[in-house]
Amino acid sequence: MPHPEVIPALLLIADGLGDRYCPELGGRTPLEAANTPTLDRLAAEGETGLLDPIDVGVRGGSDTGHLSILGYDPYRYYTGRGPFEALGIGMDVRPSDIAFRGNFASLDASGIVIDRRAGRITEGTVDLAAALDGFECEGIVCRVKESIAHRCAVVLRGEGLSDQVGETDPHDEGAAPFHPLLPGADAAGQKTARVLQAFTRHSYEVLNDHPVNRRRREEGQPPANIVLTRGAGRSPDLAPFDAANNVHSACIVEVGLVKGIGRYLGMEVIDVPGATGGLDTDTDAIGRAVVAALRDHDFILCNVKGPDVAAHDGDPLGKREIIEKIDRMVAQILRGHGDRLVVTVTGDHTTACETGDHTGEPCPILFWGPGVRRDAVTAFGETACGTGSVHRIRGLAVVRILTSYMGAQEKYGA
Amino acid sequence: MPHPEVIPALLLIADGLGDRYCPELGGRTPLEAANTPTLDRLAAEGETGLLDPIDVGVRGGSDTGHLSILGYDPYRYYTGRGPFEALGIGMDVRPSDIAFRGNFASLDASGIVIDRRAGRITEGTVDLAAALDGFECEGIVCRVKESIAHRCAVVLRGEGLSDQVGETDPHDEGAAPFHPLLPGADAAGQKTARVLQAFTRHSYEVLNDHPVNRRRREEGQPPANIVLTRGAGRSPDLAPFDAANNVHSACIVEVGLVKGIGRYLGMEVIDVPGATGGLDTDTDAIGRAVVAALRDHDFILCNVKGPDVAAHDGDPLGKREIIEKIDRMVAQILRGHGDRLVVTVTGDHTTACETGDHTGEPCPILFWGPGVRRDAVTAFGETACGTGSVHRIRGLAVVRILTSYMGAQEKYGA
Repeated sequence: MPHPEVIPALLLIADGLGDRYCPELGGRTPLEAANTPTLDRLAAEGETGLLDPIDVGVRGGSDTGHLSILGYDPYRYYTGRGPFEALGIGMDVRPSDIAFRGNFASLDASGIVIDRRAGRITEGTVDLAAALDGFECEGIVCRVKESIAHRCAVVLRGEGLSDQVGETDPHDEGAAPFHPLLPGADAAGQKTARVLQAFTRHSYEVLNDHPVNRRRREEGQPPANIVLTRGAGRSPDLAPFDAANNVHSACIVEVGLVKGIGRYLGMEVIDVPGATGGLDTDTDAIGRAVVAALRDHDFILCNVKGPDVAAHDGDPLGKREIIEKIDRMVAQILRGHGDRLVVTVTGDHTTACETGDHTGEPCPILFWGPGVRRDAVTAFGETACGTGSVHRIRGLAVVRILTSYMGAQEKYGA
Repeated sequence: MPHPEVIPALLLIADGLGDRYCPELGGRTPLEAANTPTLDRLAAEGETGLLDPIDVGVRGGSDTGHLSILGYDPYRYYTGRGPFEALGIGMDVRPSDIAFRGNFASLDASGIVIDRRAGRITEGTVDLAAALDGFECEGIVCRVKESIAHRCAVVLRGEGLSDQVGETDPHDEGAAPFHPLLPGADAAGQKTARVLQAFTRHSYEVLNDHPVNRRRREEGQPPANIVLTRGAGRSPDLAPFDAANNVHSACIVEVGLVKGIGRYLGMEVIDVPGATGGLDTDTDAIGRAVVAALRDHDFILCNVKGPDVAAHDGDPLGKREIIEKIDRMVAQILRGHGDRLVVTVTGDHTTACETGDHTGEPCPILFWGPGVRRDAVTAFGETACGTGSVHRIRGLAVVRILTSYMGAQEKYGA
């Protein structure tokens, strides 16, 4: 339940919102070219600026960007890709778990990796992962889950593990899998290496004659008969978001990786049917879910993935269109919930249609709601927000600003 | 060779660029008073702001400023002046070397320092340094090189050294040189003190009757018959610039100290005949060298020293003039290379004509090139850039911003 006098807040992340000037849009960014009467009104009535989600000039990801915007310094907590990869595909990852990124690969009879991606296998990996999931060794449980194509993630859970462990993936074909024992490893590192080595051998024993691979051989495809791992990371010990910020939060997000982060932070993750993560997503349904969640939560993280998807496709018109859908969604939320709401709209990184990838420029950001000052900016866009009175801030500051407006932040000092 | 799709970048440091309002220039800064059509065009077409090379309000040097702007935190890596003094006079300094600033001084027959600067000796120190260079003790080689006037630098190279070693320079005349052993020194500190003490004694033995000093005595000058050291520092272990930033760089700079830093960072240092480091420098030749270097490098650090020299001389008209030369040089580079270039222009610190020394105000900075946003600033100057949309950034961010625009920066996260 919300604190009685607290004003609820909506932190709306339009994924990959920032962009560059696009020739197709008359030299404007997709956000600048979009018809966004509601976002423009919030900018005009509130305060705007530029957000470096991680730090000035850093070309960040969705995971590092969201962590930072939620108040967790990625330079401190983003250790190894494994735990975030596993979170992203919906695995149950807990603090102190050791997690890896994995590949299903092809090993020949002499123990040599002949295809690191098992012919870029697309089907059957659900069954292969299930056949390995739950393997135990020295009191450690190994969880395995398939990801896209030949990818998977491996999570080790139990006492006495370490992230000081090497890769079994030799990174080159024609080589044998590496033994993961690192020189000078301590007892925990040695144990982790033994368990990972046992898991790797086990994966070959179980997968080599698995029906999926018998079928692949019949079809002339290389078998996906071993799991190779890399990117070991110890799942960081993160303070739960609600306790850290004195809020009761919910997470309505489209990106699996961000859902995973929300769950890891103890936020309530609300799934929305129709939220596809694409340009066709049902922003109406997302907006309704936000309004509903505001009835019994006081902090909503909402992420709409579409702007990033369009920019990765080099599609500024598509990006403009999904931004216009987001604008209508914000209007719908304000209609549904009313004005007693602090709103922040920004991106987790810039994704430039020009390059089709993330770039290091800051995202525009707006703050709106009771108590928020007003600056001279009257439109929500990269160029306009460059003159706003929020100036230029880092992601780590965003939740602090919101909880202050909410009236939820503990005083620091007397 | 440059990465095929990377956009090359020019980081142009006008040394000591920032300044204060000068009465001689109608209350404008030298940059504001200068006729700089090209820099103004880049400011108008790009993005501007203020740069604190090290941190807000810090009165920095060329060494600390360049280190920071190149992405190496001087608070972490600038340990003792010795290594940077030695780099600045062109010595070969390597990670883990222990380096000192030194003075040629005058010792009387009873072992008392009677002149810490040997009568501010100006001639013969090349020979004196050469006579000491290469001294060996306990497997350690001592390298010695003269600097300006009575100054020199000493570099110790070999196993088992420490920077926990005292000064032999007593800092007062009428005292004997100090023994450099520090109380509680560990084995490495003890060894370093023994070697330095042996070197100090050796310097007296070799120099006291050196022909340069026989001549000085005949002329009634105090002999330069001992080397006194201070400012011990361990040369820091810095990641090579190119590997750290995924670029192929070259360094076209006028300041010896900055050349030394470039060399230490593994950058290719290109010398330009006619680059004098003064107001008479051949900026045309520097510009040609930049254009040539851009053919087979993708990151050029260029430093023109003149603005700093003029400001140290309290000469705002001279500073204005060299800034106008730099403006013409930028036009020449763009004509020669074309527009496919990201350009940053700024200073490594402010040098105020009014005080004749470095001050802590930020420098103006501009970014221009493909992908760079545009703000409302249309002139390159301290006052104008105070309203730019880059706002206020620190030196450590500059190379990140550039490599993001270049398309050379690895993504941090997924």
